[in-house]
Amino acid sequence: MNGAECLLRTLIANGIDVCLMNPGTSEMQFVSALDRVPGMRGVLGLFEGVCSGAADGYARMSGKPAATLLHLGPGLANGLANFHNARKALSPVVNIVGEHSTQHLGYDAPLTADIEAFARPVSGWVRTLHEASAMGELAAAAVMASFGPPGQVASLIIPADFSWSEAGEPGGAAMRPGRSLPTRETVSGIAATLRSGERVGLLLSGTALHVRGLRAAHRLREATGVRVFANRNAGRMARGGDIPTAERIPYFPEAAQSLLANLERLILVEAKPPVSFFGYPGLRSSLAPAGCSFDVLAALDQDGVGALEWLADEVGAPSVPTSSPHMARPEIPHGEPLTAAAIGRTVGALVPQGAIFSDETVSCNEQIWPHLAGAPAHDHLPVTGGSIGQGLPVAVGAALACPGRKVVALEADGSAMYTLQSLWTMAREKLDVTIVILANRRYRILDIEMGRTGAAAVQRAAGQRVIGPRADEMLDLTRPEPDWVKLAEGFGVQGVRTETADQFIREFGAAMKESGPRLIEAVLPRG
Amino acid sequence: MNGAECLLRTLIANGIDVCLMNPGTSEMQFVSALDRVPGMRGVLGLFEGVCSGAADGYARMSGKPAATLLHLGPGLANGLANFHNARKALSPVVNIVGEHSTQHLGYDAPLTADIEAFARPVSGWVRTLHEASAMGELAAAAVMASFGPPGQVASLIIPADFSWSEAGEPGGAAMRPGRSLPTRETVSGIAATLRSGERVGLLLSGTALHVRGLRAAHRLREATGVRVFANRNAGRMARGGDIPTAERIPYFPEAAQSLLANLERLILVEAKPPVSFFGYPGLRSSLAPAGCSFDVLAALDQDGVGALEWLADEVGAPSVPTSSPHMARPEIPHGEPLTAAAIGRTVGALVPQGAIFSDETVSCNEQIWPHLAGAPAHDHLPVTGGSIGQGLPVAVGAALACPGRKVVALEADGSAMYTLQSLWTMAREKLDVTIVILANRRYRILDIEMGRTGAAAVQRAAGQRVIGPRADEMLDLTRPEPDWVKLAEGFGVQGVRTETADQFIREFGAAMKESGPRLIEAVLPRG
Repeated sequence: MNGAECLLRTLIANGIDVCLMNPGTSEMQFVSALDRVPGMRGVLGLFEGVCSGAADGYARMSGKPAATLLHLGPGLANGLANFHNARKALSPVVNIVGEHSTQHLGYDAPLTADIEAFARPVSGWVRTLHEASAMGELAAAAVMASFGPPGQVASLIIPADFSWSEAGEPGGAAMRPGRSLPTRETVSGIAATLRSGERVGLLLSGTALHVRGLRAAHRLREATGVRVFANRNAGRMARGGDIPTAERIPYFPEAAQSLLANLERLILVEAKPPVSFFGYPGLRSSLAPAGCSFDVLAALDQDGVGALEWLADEVGAPSVPTSSPHMARPEIPHGEPLTAAAIGRTVGALVPQGAIFSDETVSCNEQIWPHLAGAPAHDHLPVTGGSIGQGLPVAVGAALACPGRKVVALEADGSAMYTLQSLWTMAREKLDVTIVILANRRYRILDIEMGRTGAAAVQRAAGQRVIGPRADEMLDLTRPEPDWVKLAEGFGVQGVRTETADQFIREFGAAMKESGPRLIEAVLPRG
Repeated sequence: MNGAECLLRTLIANGIDVCLMNPGTSEMQFVSALDRVPGMRGVLGLFEGVCSGAADGYARMSGKPAATLLHLGPGLANGLANFHNARKALSPVVNIVGEHSTQHLGYDAPLTADIEAFARPVSGWVRTLHEASAMGELAAAAVMASFGPPGQVASLIIPADFSWSEAGEPGGAAMRPGRSLPTRETVSGIAATLRSGERVGLLLSGTALHVRGLRAAHRLREATGVRVFANRNAGRMARGGDIPTAERIPYFPEAAQSLLANLERLILVEAKPPVSFFGYPGLRSSLAPAGCSFDVLAALDQDGVGALEWLADEVGAPSVPTSSPHMARPEIPHGEPLTAAAIGRTVGALVPQGAIFSDETVSCNEQIWPHLAGAPAHDHLPVTGGSIGQGLPVAVGAALACPGRKVVALEADGSAMYTLQSLWTMAREKLDVTIVILANRRYRILDIEMGRTGAAAVQRAAGQRVIGPRADEMLDLTRPEPDWVKLAEGFGVQGVRTETADQFIREFGAAMKESGPRLIEAVLPRG
């Protein structure tokens, strides 16, 4: 068999059966092999950032890697921003990048670029295939590398001639390495801390924010009074219904530092010490109080869930907690103006059990977030690496991973714009994604950040922060206003504009009752 | 003054007065300074690839750098594919990338990434500012570096705190280095070659393909019979009207090798030895015949125009050529089906003097190209690095550089999709760009490449190459069909669909008579 077929067989043997792709000439052998080797679902993206972001979303929901297939250095370059997010989400991805044939590489053709250099900043593992006969072995190594732990992007670069040459046997099944538990000393030490009377918090991230981790943390909270915090930029967090809550660390450092102000110790569970999103003049970047100590219950590559359960047993917490914070569903905001809070309440009130939120809202996020807590049990996929343009692709990947579950993409008109080509893949694959575009016609967060970084302050007039007209133009999305209904329809997705809460309630409710992609533009008040 | 103001003043002092930007928190000081420091036109792009591609187009047409302002590693990542094209076009660009404040960098915040590593593969010069007081000096060095020669992307990375701190004086005017001429021995040696009776060709690229270079090459052709070839992937080529022609090297290696088959020597003028776009099984990548020798009249960093004029004088060519290949304008294809050739004839017949073509067509290119030769004098901006998604951004940049000249973007429905956000910037800036979308609902070139790389051959049935249904799905743009009229309108650009040559003639003609952006979707026959 040729190299492309060998590669495909190796992936499939390892359970990788979805490939997000935007292929070119160098990848044609792989594409052709899709018809000879059964078992791989090829999903076309019209822009590479759709593919990389979808692979991230797929991994966050399925726990296993998808493959991506990208065309040479520039094709990879277009995927990098969402691979950055995948890297921060600790998502496993097997990223296959075609390269020029080896005899062509010496000639500096137009598309020649340093593919490994493009791949390195986002990948935990980068290899270029150097002989056709090693295809199976190296592909299996890429799968293995993607597993981590923790999960990572493994980039495998394949010169075109190794795809069309004879390649030998496919690689074997890659072993998925287990995650280790902490040592007995660590667990008993932290158990002692929990009993010490110190003001202690648990900071959960990674798999510790899945249902089992949250339940174990809740047992600890009930037994010891420990506070439970959530990294707001973890890849996935279970929430709603009877899933125990965690206090999400706020976006701005003042609020975060205030939330954590009393802590003497913070116990890290697949988490790093908390840090603010940006640095600001005169503010600390670290969010924990100055004197706070850190204990690592589970490192990023360890089994945080098992560690939490062990720790709960160690402190003698009852295995069935006595309380569970079943929040009431929010009231539907009939007759109200259409605000972010009204959207949050509507969504919280109407989403079905098992929904998946791909949430890229920034300036509106705090108005929506509280109301989702009253929704039935769901998964929340937040911003991880801060590369804008992740929300729609992550929704694509989540929908591919979880057919039968409703995916709701919460987007803003600024952020949805970076990878709007995702809409086409949703239409083609008939993915069950409802997209809510919170249209404030502004890079609203930058209004706030302009003041916070001191940039607007230098233009104070009568004590008011003022943004000058030229600066204002760079934050403004009204001249012209993007029309998201037309954009959706242009990609084959049904779209509708809503300007009152009642319109939004009707349209969102209708979307919850039907399957398939649908976009709802929610026009927010200006100013 | 603070660092942002110092940076802005240094750019303006160096004649850089356009900044393509998609800023974030770390760049707010720069944005704010736009209102305090007059002279910089800020142009907002909704996706970073719009900015990087527009800077390329601006440089190709103005000969001077624009600035780009991008947000951290991921913002830069989204601009890389079009910076790759700018690199291959030898376009000067001053690329400013904001970085986290220095005190924040140690914390591995979500957006932290290795910005220099992202920048290096596309930049000839990369520096991170290490103290606020060096801002002016380093900014001037970035401008200087962008000049080359040849032009290159100079990436200057600025931690946010150096923008908000006191910075000292702006940097001085950067000297634009001159381009050297070849030695007298080189010129007289090549003159002797031209008189030797050998079968000789000139291969022009870079500035040698501007009007003066083509005129000098034509003098040489008339005086010595030398053939004149053009690198098809040079940044810009003058053409039409009474501008002397050059034979463009074909895309596929067989045709290119056939065109060059008889050559004994090829004289390179700001050009590298010609190479095919891709490598194919059993074909040579080099396009010149096996025994062909190369002479360098002017290296990429030298003055190819001056060298050609000197050489023409040296061989005694009359300074006013006796003939000029004024081509007839094509016939308008009234009553015909809408094909790529009909589009080419219509465009060639109706574009005004001084038009600028941003041409990203691939599979349709050979049907259009011949007909543009009969248009009045114009500039043609082709694919340089092969990163798809350059055509619309390059059109943005060309229109910014050349107000008063009509820009025509020749696009396909596949390639236009990568950076379609460009349409919004065209609408906002009221750029005089007519976009023609050749909609064949297919990655048509991949049909061809699938056969050429042998990928389809393995599925031969009865001697026909067959693309299997799964592979076909990865090349297909019909399920669903993008609606380019709606996409254009969604971005505030007037759009119209045409399905016959007469419709296209009418709409294209109307677009030539008005200013402002307008998109014409030209639906081509399937099959």
